[in-house]
This record gives sequence, structure tokens and C-alpha cells, in this order.
Amino acid sequence: MKKVLLIGATGVVGSAVAEVLGSSNTVIRVGRRGGDLQADITDPASLDRLFAQVGKVDAIVSTTGQLHFGPVSEMTAEQFAIGLNDKLLGQVRLALVGQHHLNDGGSITLTSGIVAEEPIRMGANATAVNAGLEGFVRGAAIELPRGLRINAVSPTVLVESMGDYGPFFPGFEPVPARRAALAYQRSVEGAQTGRVYRVW
Amino acid sequence: MKKVLLIGATGVVGSAVAEVLGSSNTVIRVGRRGGDLQADITDPASLDRLFAQVGKVDAIVSTTGQLHFGPVSEMTAEQFAIGLNDKLLGQVRLALVGQHHLNDGGSITLTSGIVAEEPIRMGANATAVNAGLEGFVRGAAIELPRGLRINAVSPTVLVESMGDYGPFFPGFEPVPARRAALAYQRSVEGAQTGRVYRVW
Repeated sequence: MKKVLLIGATGVVGSAVAEVLGSSNTVIRVGRRGGDLQADITDPASLDRLFAQVGKVDAIVSTTGQLHFGPVSEMTAEQFAIGLNDKLLGQVRLALVGQHHLNDGGSITLTSGIVAEEPIRMGANATAVNAGLEGFVRGAAIELPRGLRINAVSPTVLVESMGDYGPFFPGFEPVPARRAALAYQRSVEGAQTGRVYRVW
Repeated sequence: MKKVLLIGATGVVGSAVAEVLGSSNTVIRVGRRGGDLQADITDPASLDRLFAQVGKVDAIVSTTGQLHFGPVSEMTAEQFAIGLNDKLLGQVRLALVGQHHLNDGGSITLTSGIVAEEPIRMGANATAVNAGLEGFVRGAAIELPRGLRINAVSPTVLVESMGDYGPFFPGFEPVPARRAALAYQRSVEGAQTGRVYRVW
């Protein structure tokens, strides 16, 4: 029975993770607006307030982060910075701040995505951000003290999201959110570090 | 004989690239302070001025970008943002702005580094930034119009930089800057796109 802090708990992936992890752990569900508690990973003060409220935890899981989708030929640096500051720096901030609020042997699990390895049209920001996030996980894993672990889960497009995202992913085989959620359980309850769990 | 805009021309890699490319191309050497012209990839206005000065080019090469080195256990999000805003977003900005100033069939060549794939202590920012940059190259390559190409060169530690960086790279075999420079020539004068040329 671990105490798990789940950021992004009200999203499609987060809801499934809350259900899968909730059967054998205490899950604190955090959303930008919904959930048990509210926090915004792009706001340092918000994260400080969150950890002051929850105290030490055994696992931090993030299933959140915004990206920019649009054609490279029209993309601006300001648009590219949306994904950098939100999904990449936001999740890195959560890990850097969160490491100090983890019990020994605790874990951090972040979310990247298949576009890191399989580029799609309009997805250059997503490929860069997700690849950068996986890089952070590889780099941080070899340094974290006290037996702390860090992994990423990289899901393909979800069955539940095909209405919104399906047209961007021609020929990609969607997976149910519940199947993606199992990878988060592997990370939280397993013993590996520096891994990217691909769900596709 | 191509017209090549080389950003970072006064650095160790850039100087070698200027020499190798200069034998069969017209190279415009750009530095933050030195070089034929001055520009700063973190400053949009500076890049606009640069392209107004040089007009259309056949190739844009970047050998520049700052990173943060330090232990993960003490790293702040602000420190992590140094590499994001400079080496990653700066080079992406150069590519996004520069695509509109390239002749048909032109190329963009950016610089990542071995730490993208081989993490080192104190290198989590470098691993994330370099991996993100390689992701951008993969994502942008499938979309660029008019036969435009984009690649990255990923050098290992350089012989010329062992005094400063050697202690961070135990057991890494250094290469001379001139050997790294050949990979930039492969990118500029070759025909591939979406590649990461590893020099190690």
C-alpha cells in the first residue's frame, strides 16, 4: 500500500491510472481544476502548496502536459515554447521539486508519447517535447539518491481519444486507457529505473 | 558552391566546420560577439536582423547553444530552463525562422551531442535538451516543403575540449573537432534528411 500523488488525475489516462493504482494503493487525485486537490505544474508556487498539503509520498505520477500541434512551415518559436514550458518543463519541475518529498525508494513516473519515436504531421513540438522528457528520465535515473527511481510511460493514441486525435494518427493502432494504465503500475510497483514503458 | 550561414562559427566545433565547409562553399561566419556578423539565437529580433543582412542562403548550420550542468538532486526548474531556452529553443527558433530564408533544396543542420544517448553525471539537462533537439529534427524532417532538409550532428567530447569537459566524460573516446566537422559537411552537401549523424 503506497501513498501515490497523481497529477492529471481527471484526464483520460489519469482516470484509468487512478482506478488501476487505487485497488492496492492510496491515490491522491490532483487536477488543474478537479480532483481531490488542485495544482498547476507550470506554477512553482502551486507545486510548493501541493507538497505542503500532502507531505511525504511514495510515488509521484504525472499524466498531464499541454503540447502545440501545427505545421512546421507556419510554426513560431512562441508556439513551440508552449510544449516546452508545459509538458516538458512542467513535468521536469514536478520531478525536481517532488524528489525532495519522496520517501526513500520512492518513484517518479512521467508521461511522454509515441510521437517521440513515430513523428506525425503537425507533431514536431510533440516529438521534441516527448523525446526531451525521455532524455530527462534517462539522465536523472543515474543520479537520483536514496533508491529513488524515475521512469516514463509512452502511450500510443487511446481508444477513448480517437474522436479528437484519430485523424492525426493514420494507421496507428489505438489502445484502451486501461491498458496504458498498467504501464504506470509497472513503474510504481516495480523496481526498474530510467525506463520508457512503451504502450503500443 | 553553396552559400552557408554558420551560427557559432567562433567556437571549437564552428571553427572546424568553417574550415571544412569553406574549401568548397561560401561560409558566412556568425558569432554572439565575433565572426563576420553577430547574432544571438535566443533573441528573435537578432535573428530577423541577421537574415535581413544575408538574404537567401542554401544552408544554415548551428554549432551553438548553452546547457546547464549540475546534479539532479540540487537542480531547479530555473536551471533546467537554461538549456531549454538556449540550446533547444534557440536552435529550433533558428530553424523555424531560417526555413523561410532558404533556397529550394536548402538544409538546416543543428547540433546535439552524445549525452542525448549516453547520460553522464550532472548531465540531465544536456540529455533532455539534446534528445529534444533530435526529436525536433525527426518531426520537422517529414514536413518541410520545397525539398528543404534538416539534420543534427551529435558529437562526442572533443579532443580540443578535454581540458574543460574531460572529467565529465570518463572512458569516453574524444574525437578531433575536424572529424566532427565532416558530419556537418555530410549534412550540408549530402541528400539525407531527418538524420542524426553520430560522431563517436
